[in-house]
Amino acid sequence: MVYLTRVEHFNAAHRLSNESWTEEKNLEVFGKCSNPNWHGHNYEIHVTVKGEPNATTGFVFNAKTLGIIINETIIEKVDHKNLNLDVAFMKGKFTSAENLVMGIWCELKPEIEKHSVQLHCIRLYETPRIYVEYFG
Amino acid sequence: MVYLTRVEHFNAAHRLSNESWTEEKNLEVFGKCSNPNWHGHNYEIHVTVKGEPNATTGFVFNAKTLGIIINETIIEKVDHKNLNLDVAFMKGKFTSAENLVMGIWCELKPEIEKHSVQLHCIRLYETPRIYVEYFG
Amino acid sequence: MVYLTRVEHFNAAHRLSNESWTEEKNLEVFGKCSNPNWHGHNYEIHVTVKGEPNATTGFVFNAKTLGIIINETIIEKVDHKNLNLDVAFMKGKFTSAENLVMGIWCELKPEIEKHSVQLHCIRLYETPRIYVEYFG
Amino acid sequence: MVYLTRVEHFNAAHRLSNESWTEEKNLEVFGKCSNPNWHGHNYEIHVTVKGEPNATTGFVFNAKTLGIIINETIIEKVDHKNLNLDVAFMKGKFTSAENLVMGIWCELKPEIEKHSVQLHCIRLYETPRIYVEYFG
Amino acid sequence: MVYLTRVEHFNAAHRLSNESWTEEKNLEVFGKCSNPNWHGHNYEIHVTVKGEPNATTGFVFNAKTLGIIINETIIEKVDHKNLNLDVAFMKGKFTSAENLVMGIWCELKPEIEKHSVQLHCIRLYETPRIYVEYFG
Amino acid sequence: MVYLTRVEHFNAAHRLSNESWTEEKNLEVFGKCSNPNWHGHNYEIHVTVKGEPNATTGFVFNAKTLGIIINETIIEKVDHKNLNLDVAFMKGKFTSAENLVMGIWCELKPEIEKHSVQLHCIRLYETPRIYVEYFG
Repeated sequence: MVYLTRVEHFNAAHRLSNESWTEEKNLEVFGKCSNPNWHGHNYEIHVTVKGEPNATTGFVFNAKTLGIIINETIIEKVDHKNLNLDVAFMKGKFTSAENLVMGIWCELKPEIEKHSVQLHCIRLYETPRIYVEYFG
Repeated sequence: MVYLTRVEHFNAAHRLSNESWTEEKNLEVFGKCSNPNWHGHNYEIHVTVKGEPNATTGFVFNAKTLGIIINETIIEKVDHKNLNLDVAFMKGKFTSAENLVMGIWCELKPEIEKHSVQLHCIRLYETPRIYVEYFG
Repeated sequence: MVYLTRVEHFNAAHRLSNESWTEEKNLEVFGKCSNPNWHGHNYEIHVTVKGEPNATTGFVFNAKTLGIIINETIIEKVDHKNLNLDVAFMKGKFTSAENLVMGIWCELKPEIEKHSVQLHCIRLYETPRIYVEYFG
Repeated sequence: MVYLTRVEHFNAAHRLSNESWTEEKNLEVFGKCSNPNWHGHNYEIHVTVKGEPNATTGFVFNAKTLGIIINETIIEKVDHKNLNLDVAFMKGKFTSAENLVMGIWCELKPEIEKHSVQLHCIRLYETPRIYVEYFG
Repeated sequence: MVYLTRVEHFNAAHRLSNESWTEEKNLEVFGKCSNPNWHGHNYEIHVTVKGEPNATTGFVFNAKTLGIIINETIIEKVDHKNLNLDVAFMKGKFTSAENLVMGIWCELKPEIEKHSVQLHCIRLYETPRIYVEYFG
Repeated sequence: MVYLTRVEHFNAAHRLSNESWTEEKNLEVFGKCSNPNWHGHNYEIHVTVKGEPNATTGFVFNAKTLGIIINETIIEKVDHKNLNLDVAFMKGKFTSAENLVMGIWCELKPEIEKHSVQLHCIRLYETPRIYVEYFG
């Protein structure tokens, strides 16, 4: 079993807030992240697949194909978008990094597993100093 | 003459658009950056000052003091903010990286030059692959 | 289960030596790291916690709270310190990266697990090219 | 159990192609990577070993010794080399990152496990955005 | 005057050798870089242009347009190529980083200066630890 | 004129203090950096030379030779050392990054200029977020 990771990135706006809370409660829990006028990030995403290297290519998976899938399935939906307003798979969810990585997992998994490879992990950097990982 | 640089960062939302243009024209020039629902970045800022090292400290400028000035003068005004809506020194300006670095220069210069040191350069990364520099 | 990591850093001096050995033996095993006048590093620490995202926030753990815990429990005790002389939780131990990461784990675990989240891993970079990981 | 990682790098040329295929088929599968005149990379390798810290040193393994083993066993064989033509342990294999990391594992494992430590993982970056991992 | 930089990258093979020298002389001067079977790098290129921000866009130059020019003029000619064999603008030159940055400058300058902006500097990383800069 | 930069690093301990001041005054000016038991850094140094590429090599300067000079002239004197106690060229000086970069300049300049190339700039990172530059 070999693990192959491809890194992509996107830039997006978002806001953390619980609509059922007062503004004070949101500020207390989410701090500056609850700014009603939004803020944003350069997100970086690491998508890891696993499998046996193919005998005729030496590849677990073609990294170019993996890049195309990530771009068509995820990047086109989130890049230069507002995660709270513009992204169908995040509708009705808090746009925390945790929920975002789980949402991305659900979008990517069926597209990747059409091919003979398993999705193993998604790592999502919200900033260079805060990141989340999800293994399904 | 020695040059001292301190690096800080902030996360903000913004949008590029010329209000006097049609949406089509904005899309043609600014592409995805004109999304009306905003997008955002992890900005990184490098502030460079220059001067002679002080004989009693060995410092051109106290890097801790420089950090406090950058934070009080800039970071508090832009971090987790919408550059188009929330930032007084960007009012009425396109929030391109070029205009932003010039706006930051004008805010920082008087605060830094209250001390016996000159502001030399501000470098602003919008993404790890796009940055601007301004020398006044 | 989602994993959340926050990165912090500190600068410290240390020395590797076994007091029961001769200077020659120390030099043979620890090389330049045994310099009696100390050397130092910019350490970088990645603290990973795991749990289920909270239904009212979308967070596994509030990253701001995690940062406060790491700073109060670890960074204040080691930043700009001598790891051999100034740090209570390293007293009587070799200040190898391995022992340091284990010491940090023991300090952090009870503070983090007061909250409804588990400490999963600590990764400690001694230099950009040498790092250790501990999972308890 | 503590995990210790040391990072090294090497620069090499290679080419991806299946000699039993037509040039068109190679181009379709391997794209630009099948250029008959070669291309190359700055590879970065992370070698992770695991074990209990030694009571007389605080080390899982001496990082200097680990560096010497990686350099003598791997770097000298691949640095500034053509992976398809010059490297004995890759003879007859596609020089994909997957096959390369498995080949490196087989070279390194016996050399490292002469010492009282286990080889845990090798991570190999082909570019900053594509990497593979192998755990044996 | 504001300076705008865009970063791109490419992967290429090359070899350093002076054909009029013996193999021994080449080895003495160029070391491992003279391997007749080639080696290679992940090159990173920083292209800096300068000008006044445009009053209707806030841009010195559209970073998207700059990216297209760099890709069409340079990256397509050098990416996954052999710099000694495949690149017209390097024919008959040693493929040192110095000659390469000067060759890239001559290709890029007329394409960039068709627009109302000046090419200021090209920085070329051969490895993360060796880079060259050229200002014309 | 082409500029060539080579990056090296070293790990050292130091302390900032003015012996003619009280401990309180030192703490006020230098903060945690005045800890009498030292602290330390992973320093990174960028040495830039400039000149015309040589017609028989394509080099402004042989990067391997530059690396040897930096290592023999600087790294061996400062790596795993105490900058206040162990380094002859810093004796009697505050070990601020500013003074250190000027001290390194004076050591390197005559060694580099024995060759047909000029020393242009030294950039010294004390941390990833604080660096100084000196041009002589």
